[in-house]
Amino acid sequence: MLPPHRVIRAAVLALAGIAFGQSSPSLTGDWVSAFAKFDAKGYERVNLAQSGDRLTGESDGMKLTGSIKNGKIELEGKGDKDHKLKASGVFEGGEFRGTAVLDGDDLTWRMYPEKKSPGVKTHTFEPTAFHRQFTNAIPPVLHVFPGDSISTWTVDAGGNDAQMKKRSNGGNPETGPFYVEGALPGDVLAIKLNRVRLNRDLAFSGTRVVPTALHPGYFAGLQRDSEKVKGFNGKWILDREKMTGRLEKPGDRLKEYTVPLRPMMGCIGVAPPAGMAWRTGYLGVFGGNMDYNEVREGVTVYLPVFEPGALLFIGDGHAAQGDGELTGDALETSMDVTFTVDVIRGKGQSGPRMESADYLMASGIAGSLHEALQMATTELSRWLARDYDLNYAEIGLLFGSAMRYDIAEVVDPFVHVVAKIPKKALASIPPAKGK
Amino acid sequence: MLPPHRVIRAAVLALAGIAFGQSSPSLTGDWVSAFAKFDAKGYERVNLAQSGDRLTGESDGMKLTGSIKNGKIELEGKGDKDHKLKASGVFEGGEFRGTAVLDGDDLTWRMYPEKKSPGVKTHTFEPTAFHRQFTNAIPPVLHVFPGDSISTWTVDAGGNDAQMKKRSNGGNPETGPFYVEGALPGDVLAIKLNRVRLNRDLAFSGTRVVPTALHPGYFAGLQRDSEKVKGFNGKWILDREKMTGRLEKPGDRLKEYTVPLRPMMGCIGVAPPAGMAWRTGYLGVFGGNMDYNEVREGVTVYLPVFEPGALLFIGDGHAAQGDGELTGDALETSMDVTFTVDVIRGKGQSGPRMESADYLMASGIAGSLHEALQMATTELSRWLARDYDLNYAEIGLLFGSAMRYDIAEVVDPFVHVVAKIPKKALASIPPAKGK
Amino acid sequence: MLPPHRVIRAAVLALAGIAFGQSSPSLTGDWVSAFAKFDAKGYERVNLAQSGDRLTGESDGMKLTGSIKNGKIELEGKGDKDHKLKASGVFEGGEFRGTAVLDGDDLTWRMYPEKKSPGVKTHTFEPTAFHRQFTNAIPPVLHVFPGDSISTWTVDAGGNDAQMKKRSNGGNPETGPFYVEGALPGDVLAIKLNRVRLNRDLAFSGTRVVPTALHPGYFAGLQRDSEKVKGFNGKWILDREKMTGRLEKPGDRLKEYTVPLRPMMGCIGVAPPAGMAWRTGYLGVFGGNMDYNEVREGVTVYLPVFEPGALLFIGDGHAAQGDGELTGDALETSMDVTFTVDVIRGKGQSGPRMESADYLMASGIAGSLHEALQMATTELSRWLARDYDLNYAEIGLLFGSAMRYDIAEVVDPFVHVVAKIPKKALASIPPAKGK
Amino acid sequence: MLPPHRVIRAAVLALAGIAFGQSSPSLTGDWVSAFAKFDAKGYERVNLAQSGDRLTGESDGMKLTGSIKNGKIELEGKGDKDHKLKASGVFEGGEFRGTAVLDGDDLTWRMYPEKKSPGVKTHTFEPTAFHRQFTNAIPPVLHVFPGDSISTWTVDAGGNDAQMKKRSNGGNPETGPFYVEGALPGDVLAIKLNRVRLNRDLAFSGTRVVPTALHPGYFAGLQRDSEKVKGFNGKWILDREKMTGRLEKPGDRLKEYTVPLRPMMGCIGVAPPAGMAWRTGYLGVFGGNMDYNEVREGVTVYLPVFEPGALLFIGDGHAAQGDGELTGDALETSMDVTFTVDVIRGKGQSGPRMESADYLMASGIAGSLHEALQMATTELSRWLARDYDLNYAEIGLLFGSAMRYDIAEVVDPFVHVVAKIPKKALASIPPAKGK
Repeated sequence: MLPPHRVIRAAVLALAGIAFGQSSPSLTGDWVSAFAKFDAKGYERVNLAQSGDRLTGESDGMKLTGSIKNGKIELEGKGDKDHKLKASGVFEGGEFRGTAVLDGDDLTWRMYPEKKSPGVKTHTFEPTAFHRQFTNAIPPVLHVFPGDSISTWTVDAGGNDAQMKKRSNGGNPETGPFYVEGALPGDVLAIKLNRVRLNRDLAFSGTRVVPTALHPGYFAGLQRDSEKVKGFNGKWILDREKMTGRLEKPGDRLKEYTVPLRPMMGCIGVAPPAGMAWRTGYLGVFGGNMDYNEVREGVTVYLPVFEPGALLFIGDGHAAQGDGELTGDALETSMDVTFTVDVIRGKGQSGPRMESADYLMASGIAGSLHEALQMATTELSRWLARDYDLNYAEIGLLFGSAMRYDIAEVVDPFVHVVAKIPKKALASIPPAKGK
Repeated sequence: MLPPHRVIRAAVLALAGIAFGQSSPSLTGDWVSAFAKFDAKGYERVNLAQSGDRLTGESDGMKLTGSIKNGKIELEGKGDKDHKLKASGVFEGGEFRGTAVLDGDDLTWRMYPEKKSPGVKTHTFEPTAFHRQFTNAIPPVLHVFPGDSISTWTVDAGGNDAQMKKRSNGGNPETGPFYVEGALPGDVLAIKLNRVRLNRDLAFSGTRVVPTALHPGYFAGLQRDSEKVKGFNGKWILDREKMTGRLEKPGDRLKEYTVPLRPMMGCIGVAPPAGMAWRTGYLGVFGGNMDYNEVREGVTVYLPVFEPGALLFIGDGHAAQGDGELTGDALETSMDVTFTVDVIRGKGQSGPRMESADYLMASGIAGSLHEALQMATTELSRWLARDYDLNYAEIGLLFGSAMRYDIAEVVDPFVHVVAKIPKKALASIPPAKGK
Repeated sequence: MLPPHRVIRAAVLALAGIAFGQSSPSLTGDWVSAFAKFDAKGYERVNLAQSGDRLTGESDGMKLTGSIKNGKIELEGKGDKDHKLKASGVFEGGEFRGTAVLDGDDLTWRMYPEKKSPGVKTHTFEPTAFHRQFTNAIPPVLHVFPGDSISTWTVDAGGNDAQMKKRSNGGNPETGPFYVEGALPGDVLAIKLNRVRLNRDLAFSGTRVVPTALHPGYFAGLQRDSEKVKGFNGKWILDREKMTGRLEKPGDRLKEYTVPLRPMMGCIGVAPPAGMAWRTGYLGVFGGNMDYNEVREGVTVYLPVFEPGALLFIGDGHAAQGDGELTGDALETSMDVTFTVDVIRGKGQSGPRMESADYLMASGIAGSLHEALQMATTELSRWLARDYDLNYAEIGLLFGSAMRYDIAEVVDPFVHVVAKIPKKALASIPPAKGK
Repeated sequence: MLPPHRVIRAAVLALAGIAFGQSSPSLTGDWVSAFAKFDAKGYERVNLAQSGDRLTGESDGMKLTGSIKNGKIELEGKGDKDHKLKASGVFEGGEFRGTAVLDGDDLTWRMYPEKKSPGVKTHTFEPTAFHRQFTNAIPPVLHVFPGDSISTWTVDAGGNDAQMKKRSNGGNPETGPFYVEGALPGDVLAIKLNRVRLNRDLAFSGTRVVPTALHPGYFAGLQRDSEKVKGFNGKWILDREKMTGRLEKPGDRLKEYTVPLRPMMGCIGVAPPAGMAWRTGYLGVFGGNMDYNEVREGVTVYLPVFEPGALLFIGDGHAAQGDGELTGDALETSMDVTFTVDVIRGKGQSGPRMESADYLMASGIAGSLHEALQMATTELSRWLARDYDLNYAEIGLLFGSAMRYDIAEVVDPFVHVVAKIPKKALASIPPAKGK
């Protein structure tokens, strides 16, 4: 059967506390309601106002009414059509716990207060362990608030740090995960890459184009000649002032070859949907090993959130990379990074998006280039339809005249195509109301 | 069974003429030998020297010896291994005709003198008919020599000229075919686009992204809303001074939208291999409807030659086009074009290549994006291996650090991906000997 | 621009002749009207009744009225909405010739009487030439009527006949083309394969799986070991009594290996759409090199018609073939074949279909397996929707519970997937009215 | 960077225990050595013989020598080339723990005794919880030995049991995981399906072909007509005696439609490689949601092992399923199953394989049909090369004449193609030595 993308509409709950008594703090404020059935979970934001023992509020399009009496909360919600809630519980361990009936479904639920930022802050984070899975199973290394910045560093894809000390097994070990307070499934996490800087003078790449990027007969011919390329390696010397790279042992014909350095992050991702744990070679709607050479300093990456806190991972720096990451890797190196996180509530993206000074970019990540292209075009179309209030004839006219594709990478377990539109093309179009 | 790409190694022939007698012109010089078996044909260049009634020469790696006596030519050739020829014939209608045994195969053959250019020339060609097939079945409209230029014009994809007069049915009607003297199968035809200029103020595009470029579920949703986009059309007003385009009836949201114009030729092709006739919506190793937005003024297109004279077609001008030609067309318009043709002998390309001021570009044209990407990468790899004498580790290092992909189009019967390498990256690498 | 699949709606015409006078034959009867504009052609059937000099009739949903006077025919037609015709012409060379205005388009036109079968007949056809293109450019070798049968033979894919005499170059040389009177574009040609019989004891196959059917890394490894398989060849000895094949030189391990023979035709096709000429290695909506191992004795193949007379080609017999035709060929052999042709008027198929005792089968032929599967599923869905009057929920229920796929071949320029439904599953469903 | 499939060659270790003293049990016997570095783990089998305080043995191709003295074990191993080991440790908690240097790598290690079966047994397992991830993170519900059988039952894809009681959320909840003693990474787990039986009279399917299996334009047309199919549902009544299914509310045209029941398991899988956790809609080298309608009673499924104990999951029974699982599901139902597990040591498969009375079948599971077909063909080729000692010309001859493909499913996150060869075709070929 199909993987059930049917996301259970999340519970809306409320809470109270007998102990509060006269002097107890008001429940007025922002809460998060979490419900569960078997192994499924759902989350909704709740806004409550307390007046005496009466409660009113709003959540998930429902008007809430209820009471807080003798330590017990009772809440009822009514929305459109059959959308309704009945919930009750008691205060315990800093949150309300009880049961709910939501749209006919019997659920367990709890409700906890939303944390508020004490003020914008830049965190300096010194990593000590590195992780090779995108997953919600690894405890966060740091909790931050929307608007906060994190300054940290990443090891290279092989696990080596700026001093070439082995800090992890290879395979894109990541720094993180960072827990962003307030991020809930259905939100979007924005990561602005303020600094992406080289921190050593060495990088390593492969020397052979991967078989899947070449005609199989041609590749087989190359393999028969494999003796010819003995002695070649992909060790690069990086000149961080001139921002160029050259091979340490280039052989005769490439001895003058230099490549301009354009540092980028190969991996940036959040915990995947449905509690899955994917190796850090993988990529998907959660981002991950996207290997797109435009994920550079100055760019903002937008990722859908699938777990409370989002759980952000970053790693796999590249000093430079051609399109497609054709040798299965790029100029792999460690990196100093600083980025600012923000949460866009309830935006509901279907995959990663990026924004640079010049482009809006939408990712398509899939098992084939064709499907990846379809997803990228679709996601960019959704973006413009919503943020610029364009119908599909208008989008057709824009795309037919000005859209561009990039083939980000073709060597990982999934391929990655990006559809992008110049911001210049959009400059004359007023944004949709409310954007 | 597989289509037999086994190209019959071409016949090598020679000739003479008794009637020439003492005063007859010498056979010394360059000839073309043509052989046939059933419906297959092959061609080879022949260089002959006559001394009395003795002939010596060279063709296809064979040394030739023979005689011309009493109106009859006899030739024998010997090359490597079992490569050998025995041919004889008589002079008739300006050429020699007879039979040959080539490497054991019994063949008919004829040999005719190669035509020499009387001097480089620019031809002004005024088209009167337009063709909707790439084929060798249409008589050439003009014979030119390598080095010559042609100045002509093309109708738009719908068959309308600069005055919006209907000159043909729609479907990419082409100007041509032009016969380039001296071009033989196995050669490469170089077409330098000196001028690609708009000649009217109107262009037409579609208004809807084609279904194959979108997720099918998303597309189906759009189609359900098709009432919403009634009244939209893709008529564009071109400002040839500012080089921008705007919609004639843009609706409210696109009323300030302008697109920079970058005129390009959607179609440039030669007669396809194996005597096939393909509609001008098709593309392939012969070029054709490539719809690549970098085929612009200043660019040189290199196409493999499959028929004597190559038979060059050109048409389908676009004032501007996004990647992929997503609405199934671009800003379709008529065009004034001037180009210079040249023949690179025996170069043996596997598909179209392009060269601009900044890039070497190799096309992959196939039934899927994956196969197209494989072919593009492979063709660029072959190009660099041959012209820069690079082994595949060196190519891997170049590609991994500096190669780029373009998705040229995804809407025609085949898709088109381009692999390109900056000339700047190659600047430090000495060309292979003899290049 | 996209290849314009927009087929010009065909002209409807009529005719008369003053010279007929009193004694002239009546125009009452069936005619074919052919119109043209630039290089495009269209055809419609016309039914006329003459009464004095008045004409009435019907064509393409229009009621016709007109006259035949002084050698000149005038006709007017009116159908739904704006569908209308005005035509006039004179009798010349056995047909009427003149001009028409159809739905606003100015056209040339001619009208000729439809030929009637003199009675069902079996033709014995002895081929002398074989053709390596599917095209309308080859003059028909035989004209037959719907209901007629043809008994003939085919050479093998390499051009060898039953006596192993070389009759053609290799590459699927075909017997035909056969012109089927009365077939017009938009019809369907039914070819019932009554006999498909081996006529010699030898077949030839390749010995290596094609690179595209294997993982490229695995294939490259095999190629490095190519020394190991020297001496192997694919010459098969056919036992026509036991209907088994064995290798002539099987080596040690395959010395007892026998394969059951299931003779089939690799190629069966009509002239392709839009006047295209495709090599006989190609396949498409017109059939062609379909290489499907169920195209066997007893099976009926249904092909859309694109040219008057359909122009049927047949060839490329296989004594046996695994799925996918994995070595690029099968057990290639010459064949004796007898088949009956019929024309189903105006049925409008989008691709090849087949029918056996057990299955309805619909072909999807495309550049990728995914697209081929989509086309096969779609074509089978269309078939059932029309012939069994099923909506798409009913088709979903049928397909989800009982549909099967075959991968016919993966080695030709296009791949071929077949969707099939057991006739047993359909047995309980009453056919649509009129089917 | 590429996901590092580089599997760290596993550590070979040994052990001892001072506490054993004179009277302590001998270390002679079979052990498992486990090594770790950062988050990577490896396993090797160890065979030891103790004589006094001297140890000898073998592991991973190395000869071992060592000692057990004063509670401390010391071991050295030497194999081919640079393959060598030095390990030492102490006895603690039923196993030896210490450190090792293997081929230059510093590792932690432990060594524990291999468990031996007390005798073949059939376990009856009554499940109480169901899991929606294939993962090593769920504690095993039962430990069994190779040769043991398990008799249990599964809920349907929606989580309902034989009494239609909801036992889990939907999305292929699984029974298990079962830990098979002795299974180590690199082994193959064989699961013989002895009984796959319906246990209720109801099944549920979708009613619409998924968008990706249809031409997108055709699908969009269907969606516009979605009003037409209101009221259709996919509830099936199963007749377990006649083994046929019919729709509960078939509508007019399908009212006599019955489908033959052929019960199968949609899901059978082990814990995925690299510690990944994948939703039970997923499939891969570990099996999982393969949805292949030949995984039926009597068939043996072979799966590669990635974790100690393999961790077998089973679920998602289908009463019947067409190829491709076109509606996104099949006739989903609960099931009674009995199966026997076995471990084939060190066989090293690249993906799932199946064996029925008639066929050897190899799975290709990938992001596109093309890649899936390549993997299936490659895996079947590997199977025959190894088990029948065939070179690739012999495999080419077999595949070209007798191989078949099945398209198992096209609707899950990955597609599944099966390459299969009739056992009859193999009957005349002697197995490779040692098979």
